Amino acid sequence: MIQTPAPELDPTSDVAQLTARLIDIGSVSGNEKAVADAVEEALRGLDQLEVVRDGDCVLARTTLGRGERVILAGHLDTVPLPTTPGARGTVPSTWEGETLYGRGATDMKGGVAVQLALAATLTAPSRDITFIFYDHEEVEASLSGLGRVAASRPDWLAADFAVLLEPTDGTVEGGCNGTARFDVRVAGKASHSARAWMGVNAIHGAAEILGRLRDHEPATVHVDGLDYRESLNAVRITGGTAGNVIPDSTVIEVNYRFAPDKTPDDAEAYVRALLEGFDVERTDAAAGARPGLQHPAAAAFVAAVGADPKPKYGWTDVARFSALGIPAVNFGPGDALLAHTDDEHVHADAIRACLAALLTWLA
Amino acid sequence: MIQTPAPELDPTSDVAQLTARLIDIGSVSGNEKAVADAVEEALRGLDQLEVVRDGDCVLARTTLGRGERVILAGHLDTVPLPTTPGARGTVPSTWEGETLYGRGATDMKGGVAVQLALAATLTAPSRDITFIFYDHEEVEASLSGLGRVAASRPDWLAADFAVLLEPTDGTVEGGCNGTARFDVRVAGKASHSARAWMGVNAIHGAAEILGRLRDHEPATVHVDGLDYRESLNAVRITGGTAGNVIPDSTVIEVNYRFAPDKTPDDAEAYVRALLEGFDVERTDAAAGARPGLQHPAAAAFVAAVGADPKPKYGWTDVARFSALGIPAVNFGPGDALLAHTDDEHVHADAIRACLAALLTWLA
Repeated sequence: MIQTPAPELDPTSDVAQLTARLIDIGSVSGNEKAVADAVEEALRGLDQLEVVRDGDCVLARTTLGRGERVILAGHLDTVPLPTTPGARGTVPSTWEGETLYGRGATDMKGGVAVQLALAATLTAPSRDITFIFYDHEEVEASLSGLGRVAASRPDWLAADFAVLLEPTDGTVEGGCNGTARFDVRVAGKASHSARAWMGVNAIHGAAEILGRLRDHEPATVHVDGLDYRESLNAVRITGGTAGNVIPDSTVIEVNYRFAPDKTPDDAEAYVRALLEGFDVERTDAAAGARPGLQHPAAAAFVAAVGADPKPKYGWTDVARFSALGIPAVNFGPGDALLAHTDDEHVHADAIRACLAALLTWLA
Repeated sequence: MIQTPAPELDPTSDVAQLTARLIDIGSVSGNEKAVADAVEEALRGLDQLEVVRDGDCVLARTTLGRGERVILAGHLDTVPLPTTPGARGTVPSTWEGETLYGRGATDMKGGVAVQLALAATLTAPSRDITFIFYDHEEVEASLSGLGRVAASRPDWLAADFAVLLEPTDGTVEGGCNGTARFDVRVAGKASHSARAWMGVNAIHGAAEILGRLRDHEPATVHVDGLDYRESLNAVRITGGTAGNVIPDSTVIEVNYRFAPDKTPDDAEAYVRALLEGFDVERTDAAAGARPGLQHPAAAAFVAAVGADPKPKYGWTDVARFSALGIPAVNFGPGDALLAHTDDEHVHADAIRACLAALLTWLA
């Protein structure tokens, strides 16, 4: 076994250069140890912080007795490296002028770099701060390091407000839609396709379901001042066994992204009503998060950052904070649409601007 | 390499016992050599026959100068053995009373046994007879031994009428429907399923296609005195790539079983008209066969066998004879619905009755 010494991270260096260093320590989900070691090492050198290591989570906080505590959270892991030859969203990082390419450039080594820079710079912040660097965000929810810490160290997740530094292109995205998945099954009866009248075609039986989904007009729901646009879609369909057999089964996977005024049970009831008469099974669900922008801590954050808040459509870990009663927003550098792509990149100024905005709020 | 000596076949033994012997020489497509050897050996012992071996085809004919020549044809291969533990449609065969279980019991070692029994019994038939035992029927058409012989030895396929001993449960099934397959493609545009409005859902786009197929009423077409019932069905559907992505592609495989008044091009035009506005690609087609029951040789056969002819819905090799201008019917022992099943079986009396009917016609 070869021990790779963790490269040093200097949290006082330029935050864009720091992002590049973080990318260079590859950390595909399940392989966060090296980057967690480097982050821990960087934080241990800062006198104002209490630091705890929990698996590949690194937790750090000030304890200055301020009247308010905020969480700044980001995940350390990335999706796998691209397999396309020549793809630049990989490890190590590369620069093209002021644009930084690499796996995690947007999702979310830039945000993690901002967390580290804030931790090093804010020796006497206006609010107490808890920094959370966590593992296993890009994989199944049950592995989430944030979920693990929330369960095992609830005192570390006590706060008035949380900022998740997921990429939002510098805007504030409040809360998030929930997501639920359903399998809708159509049963038929197999027969030879030359004697179709002896069978029942389960693919033809899916026509009505697809028609209802096609004709459904997704709602836009106003929640706490933001408009959450919903999506309700068939995302996968499979049916049939052979070219000469009348299909006896079709399964349609439906994904409903629902506004945070609904619980997963509400979402299920909605889909069941839409697809009444069909066999609907819920296979997965995660609640959304209300933006909570009316909370004083949130309002102060929005005012300091100076950007009009928008709704977050994709599910993020803000929902975990919301479930704990902590209002939370997404605010981070980079374009979320570049996340997970072969071409993942971020502009150095976007990272620096994010850092500057948060310094304004917390200094 | 172990040489398995070909078991001896006695074509003068009881035709049901002969079927069991043929089953016991397993002959999954591509492995017909042993059974072809045994059939050839049995035929070489018969003075009235000219015998030729062509790959794993065995051809034999009388040359008595009769005014009419008929072909009796059957394939030597079977589909693979069942994988279900305890399935009886396997090798070796087993008897349960007078019912014979085994792979090929219906499709079509019973028919092959009848061919062999006729070859041995009819030393002076009323019509000249060409016996064709061929390989590779249960696999892709390009491998067909019958197709190979038709191309390389056309003189062996010269005849006034052909009987294919595929299982018809003792009835005469005239001609056959044709079959054609199509891929119908719907293109969309991928996007994250939380921002569905940025994409175009290719599964929803398939609703209209499935609706048209569901609402389509297949025709029944009168051809040469028989009613051919058509079938037009989606047999497979696949679409979508992941649970959080708006699908950018859906493919529906459609199988059209069309009456023998239509060519494959007619069938394609019909499907294109039904699915107008969609991307339809023909992937496969085989012409049907008109029953040709008005031909004198066919009429004489039907009269001798004494059964009301019915249409054949599934495609069979009668279509190859039809393409050569030879009227052809299916007539053989066993229930076609048991073909390829784990429970494949045939009653001994069904095999004996088929032999008796053909002896009446040819003696």
